Amino acid sequence: MGAIICVGLGPGDPELMSVKADRLVRGATHLAYFRKAGRSGVARRIVAGMLREDVIEYPMEYPVTTEIAFDSKDYTARLAQFYEEWTERLTALAQDHEVIVLCEGDPFFYGSFMHLHSRLQGRCTVEVVPGITGMTGCWHATGIPITWGDDVLSVLMGTLPEEQLVRHMRDAHALAIMKTGRNLPKVKRALAAAGRLQDAWLVERGTMPGQRVAPLADTDLDDCPYFAIVLVHGQGRRPE
Amino acid sequence: MGAIICVGLGPGDPELMSVKADRLVRGATHLAYFRKAGRSGVARRIVAGMLREDVIEYPMEYPVTTEIAFDSKDYTARLAQFYEEWTERLTALAQDHEVIVLCEGDPFFYGSFMHLHSRLQGRCTVEVVPGITGMTGCWHATGIPITWGDDVLSVLMGTLPEEQLVRHMRDAHALAIMKTGRNLPKVKRALAAAGRLQDAWLVERGTMPGQRVAPLADTDLDDCPYFAIVLVHGQGRRPE
Repeated sequence: MGAIICVGLGPGDPELMSVKADRLVRGATHLAYFRKAGRSGVARRIVAGMLREDVIEYPMEYPVTTEIAFDSKDYTARLAQFYEEWTERLTALAQDHEVIVLCEGDPFFYGSFMHLHSRLQGRCTVEVVPGITGMTGCWHATGIPITWGDDVLSVLMGTLPEEQLVRHMRDAHALAIMKTGRNLPKVKRALAAAGRLQDAWLVERGTMPGQRVAPLADTDLDDCPYFAIVLVHGQGRRPE
Repeated sequence: MGAIICVGLGPGDPELMSVKADRLVRGATHLAYFRKAGRSGVARRIVAGMLREDVIEYPMEYPVTTEIAFDSKDYTARLAQFYEEWTERLTALAQDHEVIVLCEGDPFFYGSFMHLHSRLQGRCTVEVVPGITGMTGCWHATGIPITWGDDVLSVLMGTLPEEQLVRHMRDAHALAIMKTGRNLPKVKRALAAAGRLQDAWLVERGTMPGQRVAPLADTDLDDCPYFAIVLVHGQGRRPE
C-alpha cells in the first residue's frame, strides 16, 4: 500500500525545511515536483544534494502558456487537463509506492498541489506536511517583525484589480503582496495611492542564494524576478 | 563571544520544527522561554525530551496580571519593565554564552520575543530562526487549503473592536482569527453579521496532542481554550 505525501519545503533555505520534510525527502524513492517546461524548478533546486542515488523523478511540467492569455478558457482547460493527467499517474503509482511531492513554501497556502489534492481525494492515501511560507522567509529577510499586538495582516495577490489593492492596502496594518512580477508597476501605484509606498520593501529570493532586500520606492521595476514579495510591516500596540 | 538566538518552534508538533531549530534546541546549553507564572509553558512543553541533561534554563515569567486590566497603563508599565529586565539579563549572558530563546510559531509573527528583539539591538549578536506559524498548523488540521488563486487572506485578532472585525470579515476571502479565548462570543457575532459563520472552523491545539477541529457554529463557547484559532477557507479561482 502506497501513498502520496506532499511535503512543504519552506521558503528556500534547506535548513528551514521541517524535520519531517527533511526525513521524507532524504528517504524518497519516488519524487514528483512541478516545474515550468525547460526549467530545473525551484522545488527541485531546494532539495539538490539531499536525494537518494536511486530516486525515480517525475517532473510535472506545466503546459506551455506563452501564446495564450492566463485568464482565457483555453488556458484554464489545458491546466485542468494537466492536473487530471497527473492525478491519474500519481494514483496509479500510489498503489504500490510512497510518492513524495515537493512544494515550495506551504502546500495549503496558494500551492499548486491543492489542484491535485482535491482530485486525489478518495482515490489513494494523501498526506500533506506543512512548511514555512515564502512570505515568512521574506519578512525574516528584512530583519523586522511583520505584526505586533492587534495588527491586521492582509495577504494580497498582485493579480487583483488596482482599486481592490488600494482598498485593502488602506484597510490593513501589515501587508504581504505576492504574485508581483509583471504586476509590480500596478502594485507600486496602488501602494502610493494608499499612502503606503514609503514603508514598502521588495524582497527577492527570501532565504535563498541571491537574496535581495530593498525599499520598493528605490527599486528599478525592469529588474524584478518572479520570486519577489512586497512587504509593509505593521507598527501595532507594544509596551514602550 | 556569545549570542541570542530566538528559535521559532512551529505550531506544536516537534517534527514540524525546522532542521535548524531542531539542531539548535538539541545543542542548547542555555535556554530561555516565556511562560505564565505557575505554568510549564507551551514552548517548553514542545521541546520536552529534546534537551541536554546539563542545560541551564531561564523561564521568563510574565508579570501576574489577573488583578489589573490588560489595556491599563499599569499593565503596560509592568510589561515594559519585565522586558527591560530580561533584556539586561540576556545581554549579560550573551557576552559569554549562546542563549537559545524558544518561541511558539514564528517569532516575527505576533511573537513576544519581538519586544526583546527591539531592545537587544546593538547590545549583542541577535539571530532569529523562522518557524511554521500556528495558523498554518491549524489550517492543516482542517485538511483543507486556506487560499487559492487570487484569494485575499486577512489575519485578525479577536481583541479588535467588533465593527472592525465585521468589516474585515466581509472584505477578505479567507480569514484567520487569533487571540480568540474570551473574545470568542464577539468573534462569532461578527462572523454572523458578515455572513461567514457557517463557513467558520474552530481549531484548538492545532498539530498538538488534544487537537480538536469543529464547525464554530456547533461549538460550546464555554469550553474554549486559549490556544484556539478560527479559520474561514478561501474558495478562489481554480481550473474546474
